Amino acid sequence: MNQLTGHILLSGSSPSTTNIHYLSGFTAPDPFLYLKTTTGGYLLVSSMEKGRAEKQSTPGTQVYTPEDLGLKGKKAWNRVEQIRVLMERASIRRLLVSSDFPVGLFQTLKKKGIRISVEKNEACPERKIKTADEISKLRKSQRAAVMAMKAGIDLIASSKTGAQSCLYIGKEKLTSEIVRHLIHKTLIDHDCAGVETIVAGGDQGTDPHERGHGPLYAGQSIIMDIFPRSEKTGYWGDITRTVCRGPANPELKKLYNAVKAAQAAALKEVKPGICADDIHRLCQDIFEKRGFQTLEKEGRHVGFIHGTGHGVGLDIHERPRVGRSGEILEAGNVITIEPGLYYPGLGGVRIEDTVVVTQSGFRFLAACPKKFELL
Amino acid sequence: MNQLTGHILLSGSSPSTTNIHYLSGFTAPDPFLYLKTTTGGYLLVSSMEKGRAEKQSTPGTQVYTPEDLGLKGKKAWNRVEQIRVLMERASIRRLLVSSDFPVGLFQTLKKKGIRISVEKNEACPERKIKTADEISKLRKSQRAAVMAMKAGIDLIASSKTGAQSCLYIGKEKLTSEIVRHLIHKTLIDHDCAGVETIVAGGDQGTDPHERGHGPLYAGQSIIMDIFPRSEKTGYWGDITRTVCRGPANPELKKLYNAVKAAQAAALKEVKPGICADDIHRLCQDIFEKRGFQTLEKEGRHVGFIHGTGHGVGLDIHERPRVGRSGEILEAGNVITIEPGLYYPGLGGVRIEDTVVVTQSGFRFLAACPKKFELL
Repeated sequence: MNQLTGHILLSGSSPSTTNIHYLSGFTAPDPFLYLKTTTGGYLLVSSMEKGRAEKQSTPGTQVYTPEDLGLKGKKAWNRVEQIRVLMERASIRRLLVSSDFPVGLFQTLKKKGIRISVEKNEACPERKIKTADEISKLRKSQRAAVMAMKAGIDLIASSKTGAQSCLYIGKEKLTSEIVRHLIHKTLIDHDCAGVETIVAGGDQGTDPHERGHGPLYAGQSIIMDIFPRSEKTGYWGDITRTVCRGPANPELKKLYNAVKAAQAAALKEVKPGICADDIHRLCQDIFEKRGFQTLEKEGRHVGFIHGTGHGVGLDIHERPRVGRSGEILEAGNVITIEPGLYYPGLGGVRIEDTVVVTQSGFRFLAACPKKFELL
Repeated sequence: MNQLTGHILLSGSSPSTTNIHYLSGFTAPDPFLYLKTTTGGYLLVSSMEKGRAEKQSTPGTQVYTPEDLGLKGKKAWNRVEQIRVLMERASIRRLLVSSDFPVGLFQTLKKKGIRISVEKNEACPERKIKTADEISKLRKSQRAAVMAMKAGIDLIASSKTGAQSCLYIGKEKLTSEIVRHLIHKTLIDHDCAGVETIVAGGDQGTDPHERGHGPLYAGQSIIMDIFPRSEKTGYWGDITRTVCRGPANPELKKLYNAVKAAQAAALKEVKPGICADDIHRLCQDIFEKRGFQTLEKEGRHVGFIHGTGHGVGLDIHERPRVGRSGEILEAGNVITIEPGLYYPGLGGVRIEDTVVVTQSGFRFLAACPKKFELL
């Protein structure tokens, strides 16, 4: 990017919204513009947002409203006009946009004679190396996730088994919804919000994106995947544990132990310089060796059917991916390690921790025990 | 759209994500494709999502994985390849995309020889007319919002005034955060999630997007804006009340009464056939007549500095807008009516209800009392 080139970002879709948050410190419910140049950043927000934008944005960010830049009436709300005056103010002649920029606005800008092109490289590659401040924020969200996990596990552990192995709290059936609500309330107590938290038992847990619903049963594996976002900082946490109320049958125990072993082995490999794909392949190998195959069975994919992990930051899924991305780990990456196995009829197991890559290996963002059978 | 043309939607940004939800019934945490044709809808999801997609999608939706359509290895993850095979399966020769489609993928598709263009019209204009089923879902979310509002108001009403007019619950200072947490927990009890809820007192309330933080005080206006999303249905509710613990000074009371009068007058105008802009202008006129001007003062916009309302559905802000959109209201629209006035030094007041436009006028989605002074 030379001095006459600026990268324009429009909030509204991920990762552009979080890129703006990262670069400018500012977030807002309605879409707004951010222009990144070699000399600094320019925010263009509505007059309603100006005061907050000035307070929240990082030092050096220049905050304007359309009116500040001479736009009046209908022109003030026109994105093309907004971008035109912002370019003038920043003395920019050419625009770059990210690949997720909306095509409609791109075409209109081009038609209006603005020199604009798609930048193939990421707008904020630096996001994958977390600063000490970011790690401290991520740790707080992860701690909230651990507190909520412990509350969920304690609730399941305190349940009694009734007819047809159904779990009960007092006279009420224990359901995925009840556990999820307790988890969400615990997150609120720690200034975080949880949405789409997974509490999925038995066969529901064999679909990694099924959130879970209805009664929970003794002797089945129950996957809890909690990913809170801090209301204050915007950073996420991410943790998964799998538990079983009462004794598990030997086959289910074997399944759990395979995932636990794979996660431990994968964590041991986490260090700067290693290719993330190797960690994923290691998990695949361990499962294969223990007889847990990944294949298509009656039209469904079973076994180890997802990646081993992903970066966590202002987005819940960001770089680096731990799967088939070919990315090399670096100190300061914050990633999840979350192998899992899924077999309808037997159950699903996933164990996930979020760790920071250090010079010599890794550190957990927050500690949380792993115990399968709650007897 | 002729029989050879399909509209391709990629989830990941609003409104495309909610358009797919509306058309197919399916949602997922990771991006996926939906192709809308004159004869039906096609979902392309990962093998992990297939089971859930088949269960959740509306009848007539065809669900495929890349593998189902013959894509193997790296090609299975390539969006261009995915779209190419999906077009083949649906016998589609030309593609339309919405203006929010990502420009990077658009350009790549074009380069690969796919005939593709931007459709200027909305993908789902029908969304602004709600079905009876949708209204029932919106009503549930609005009821949750009302329950949470009542809990918040009751908490403030139960507070005692201490030194420097600070509000206390027992020995603890009552803060925006404490009220917000109670609101969020109440929403959870009603199967909804609340994020970014506004509880803003005094001058904080004069910035309509400030969420509010720190201690609350007697004699100041406190704006509470609650907009929950149902975890089950995805539909939103939206309500705002403004209260004052203890007596308000005469000027603040006048401010409140002006907003209350404007909201009541605006609601009276809500009916099919009326231009939404007229409702907005009516509120502006009422404020002007009562001496509450909208202007720039010391670099800040004060007075009535936002629109009168917006549609509510699967998006919290959707069509029709009640402001300067020129849209004509129709029976089945679900809109908010939320005039407000904001003067630093005096305070902010906003009153908002969500209503459905009926043949003869409007109906509240849920009733909630309006009372300013909590004495």
